[in-house]
Amino acid sequence: MDAGVDACFTNPGTSEMHFVAGLDSVAELRAVLGLFEGVVTGAADGYGRMTGRPAATLLHLGPGLGNGLANLHNARRARTPVVNIVGDHAVTHGQYDAPLQSDIEGVAANVSGWVRRSLRTEDVAGDAAEAVAAALGPPGQVATLILPADVSWGEGAAPAPARPVGRPHTVGDDAIEAVAKALVSGEPCVLLLGGTAVRAEGLSAASRIAGASGARLLTETFPARTERGAGVPVVDRLSYLAEFTVAQLAGARHLVLVDAKAPVSFFAYPDKPSDLVPDGCRVHVLAAPGDDAPGALAHLADLVAANETPAVAEATRPDRPAGALTGETIAAAIGALLPVGAIVSDEANTAGLWLAGATAGAPRHDWLTLTGGAIGQGLPLGTGAAVACPERKVLCLEADGSAMYTIQALWTQAREGLDVTTVIFDNRSYAILNMELGRVGATREPGPKALDMLDISRPDLDFVALARGMGVDADRATTAEDFTTLLERALAEPGPHLIDAPIPKSF
Amino acid sequence: MDAGVDACFTNPGTSEMHFVAGLDSVAELRAVLGLFEGVVTGAADGYGRMTGRPAATLLHLGPGLGNGLANLHNARRARTPVVNIVGDHAVTHGQYDAPLQSDIEGVAANVSGWVRRSLRTEDVAGDAAEAVAAALGPPGQVATLILPADVSWGEGAAPAPARPVGRPHTVGDDAIEAVAKALVSGEPCVLLLGGTAVRAEGLSAASRIAGASGARLLTETFPARTERGAGVPVVDRLSYLAEFTVAQLAGARHLVLVDAKAPVSFFAYPDKPSDLVPDGCRVHVLAAPGDDAPGALAHLADLVAANETPAVAEATRPDRPAGALTGETIAAAIGALLPVGAIVSDEANTAGLWLAGATAGAPRHDWLTLTGGAIGQGLPLGTGAAVACPERKVLCLEADGSAMYTIQALWTQAREGLDVTTVIFDNRSYAILNMELGRVGATREPGPKALDMLDISRPDLDFVALARGMGVDADRATTAEDFTTLLERALAEPGPHLIDAPIPKSF
Repeated sequence: MDAGVDACFTNPGTSEMHFVAGLDSVAELRAVLGLFEGVVTGAADGYGRMTGRPAATLLHLGPGLGNGLANLHNARRARTPVVNIVGDHAVTHGQYDAPLQSDIEGVAANVSGWVRRSLRTEDVAGDAAEAVAAALGPPGQVATLILPADVSWGEGAAPAPARPVGRPHTVGDDAIEAVAKALVSGEPCVLLLGGTAVRAEGLSAASRIAGASGARLLTETFPARTERGAGVPVVDRLSYLAEFTVAQLAGARHLVLVDAKAPVSFFAYPDKPSDLVPDGCRVHVLAAPGDDAPGALAHLADLVAANETPAVAEATRPDRPAGALTGETIAAAIGALLPVGAIVSDEANTAGLWLAGATAGAPRHDWLTLTGGAIGQGLPLGTGAAVACPERKVLCLEADGSAMYTIQALWTQAREGLDVTTVIFDNRSYAILNMELGRVGATREPGPKALDMLDISRPDLDFVALARGMGVDADRATTAEDFTTLLERALAEPGPHLIDAPIPKSF
Repeated sequence: MDAGVDACFTNPGTSEMHFVAGLDSVAELRAVLGLFEGVVTGAADGYGRMTGRPAATLLHLGPGLGNGLANLHNARRARTPVVNIVGDHAVTHGQYDAPLQSDIEGVAANVSGWVRRSLRTEDVAGDAAEAVAAALGPPGQVATLILPADVSWGEGAAPAPARPVGRPHTVGDDAIEAVAKALVSGEPCVLLLGGTAVRAEGLSAASRIAGASGARLLTETFPARTERGAGVPVVDRLSYLAEFTVAQLAGARHLVLVDAKAPVSFFAYPDKPSDLVPDGCRVHVLAAPGDDAPGALAHLADLVAANETPAVAEATRPDRPAGALTGETIAAAIGALLPVGAIVSDEANTAGLWLAGATAGAPRHDWLTLTGGAIGQGLPLGTGAAVACPERKVLCLEADGSAMYTIQALWTQAREGLDVTTVIFDNRSYAILNMELGRVGATREPGPKALDMLDISRPDLDFVALARGMGVDADRATTAEDFTTLLERALAEPGPHLIDAPIPKSF
């Protein structure tokens, strides 16, 4: 794994012991242990989102890959470069159907754009180099290399050169001119930005285009990594709620996709449309995944907004909040204190409604969201981002229900001394499901057993005890003032912290 | 789900909300929430092992199934009947590749002997009935029914009758007589018992056969459910370590498989055989999975051991231990106190070496092991066993490293008030990997990075804090006397308890 990979998140077993034994021979490779594979894969996603380079994961056969699958699903949707190394039984052992044997390829295909099984020791280095190149894309993707134990322990390993890495495809003039024509048509236009278009460069060009043409800007609902804050244009995200998305897109006659998919409802609902493109609206693709979206936006801006400057967020912060602890006052505290260069891993879900507004004028920061909808992403993602960017502060904004899927990430944060502050939006509920139970049109009045499935009190989780149990400093806030003080202290001190923030149910 | 299923372990999402809304209409169905899908599937395995009937799981699309995959792998190896209900996007929504979309069938195939997607509302009840019948086998298996949201919320659902359930196949006289001939040949014979043959009935017949013929008895390494204790014949398990397995089977000229597979090494090792059947040993299949193994053993006993009585364990317990807390003194305390009718979920791994000996003469109990080798089974399995058998005490014997994969099970134990006592064999190490690192022949001296991957101290996990954080009463033992007192108290009090037992590293 000397093919340009310098971090490996691991949860190994016996079939990976030769790989583990070799870790010390690659001086530049940082090996980070997770107690659960969902931590490992989510951390690799966070690392890849922040560096643009793949981290490796080290996973133990089919069950280990299965445990890591949900966060690989999120990585797939984020188009994050990730290289999974999945150990398997020795090739000679496969015929015996030993207890841990299963169809690894079948599971890997669920999340991987590239899957290969190394069959000879002399091929391993080349296969790994190809995995790295495949992961890098563009667009980025999950690449899975299955490494049988005997291929790993065999003789004859030979180094292999790094493979050439692809570059984003330049968008042709025709596509850009077609969009320019729509923009100057006088008909209502929306630019929907995603993927690589929601970094500062793309947002600035898009803002110039909007300013000159009157087009509206939106980003996809769950962008992998958005650059935000003072000096960067503020662009609203498409709503998770289809009802609101419809309102956001109402009246558009041209929808221009910039490394984003045409909007669809996150889930389907009875008698509601899945396809959220307004009737009569024409869809244009300015840049597809793998295209140079920022370049295309810059080119387009030169055509239609040569003299326009971007409209950027002013530096402004909310006042330190007072009073009761709620989603809104927590958001204000975060807006008041967010450090420059912070990385926010956002899995606050329903409780996070006020975050975007409260932080729009904070110092420059990155915002990572739940790209694939598979909850349990936030803590691992923040862990990997902190490994990737040791000089930056990471803030994990985490719903209580989601936190519990991969709570083991706290231990890795403690072990590695990572500068991560986790805020638990603790409403003792799968609040989103309380909302969804109504939205899906379940007509009968929900009974006690149904409601019990959405309620995660009884017993209440004590996140302070859980965090301390894994070596992470933790406190519980009682008021907005108290929370603000705890957050200030957590951000000032090195190492991981957790603040449990009990809040009322949102739904 | 009124097709003979009376427990449903759930971790639902939006696409399962109609199923959730319907829970209250099925009065006899107990719905048990897990905070993580690995808890849900492991609990279904424990429930199925103890009742012989499938519990349902309720899982959220591909990522939810992925999170539950490792314990479904163990259920597959245990041949436990389990019915997964995996919600999916509405059929009409699938074309849009919404964020949570993925190939559910591909993942389900990894663990399921039966997979179906319901396509019409009127088919759901029939599909569910077929899933239950498929799960029951024999042999038992994991059956996965994928339920698109619109099929779930549609009109026209119709009840369906339960499908006929298969019965174990009666083994033919020829097979039994062939084995009888081997047994009376005077050549060394070993009967290898597994699956349904390691309950009291099969063990008694096997013991009679051994007594009359001189055959040796062994069970498979990881039986799903063994009946043990005073009054039941004691049969050693095949060793996890191939070196010891070879010694256990040395000299055998006939190996008789009774619902067990021919022995293979758990992992492969350089220059060591995977197939552990001794050279020159003939393998006979008395009963394959799905066959009536106890019946075949009884028939065989009538042929070769008509006048023999089984050699059963006498009622005997070790003294209450004194001195330092070690794997050995913990085993003695458990042997001294194991309640009649206890169910032991054993994932103590390397630290559990002394358990079998210490409990062989304890009152009758069931012993559940890690059938598929996918760690993180023990706590969920014990949780499901406790739901299945509310009148019995469950003891989870759990290695610290393994416990952390599915530690969320403690919360379900607290929520449901389950009579589960968990003992953490807390050696702060993936001890088995320390052993395996040497066994796989990694020739170089392991460096600090390699050793770091096997060490789960730094920081030490505080299991008392973790348990209390999830509402489970917990204490830490310091000496063997202290542990024994804590265990006695935990077993006497209703509800879940955890005892953290720090012990020296075994390897």
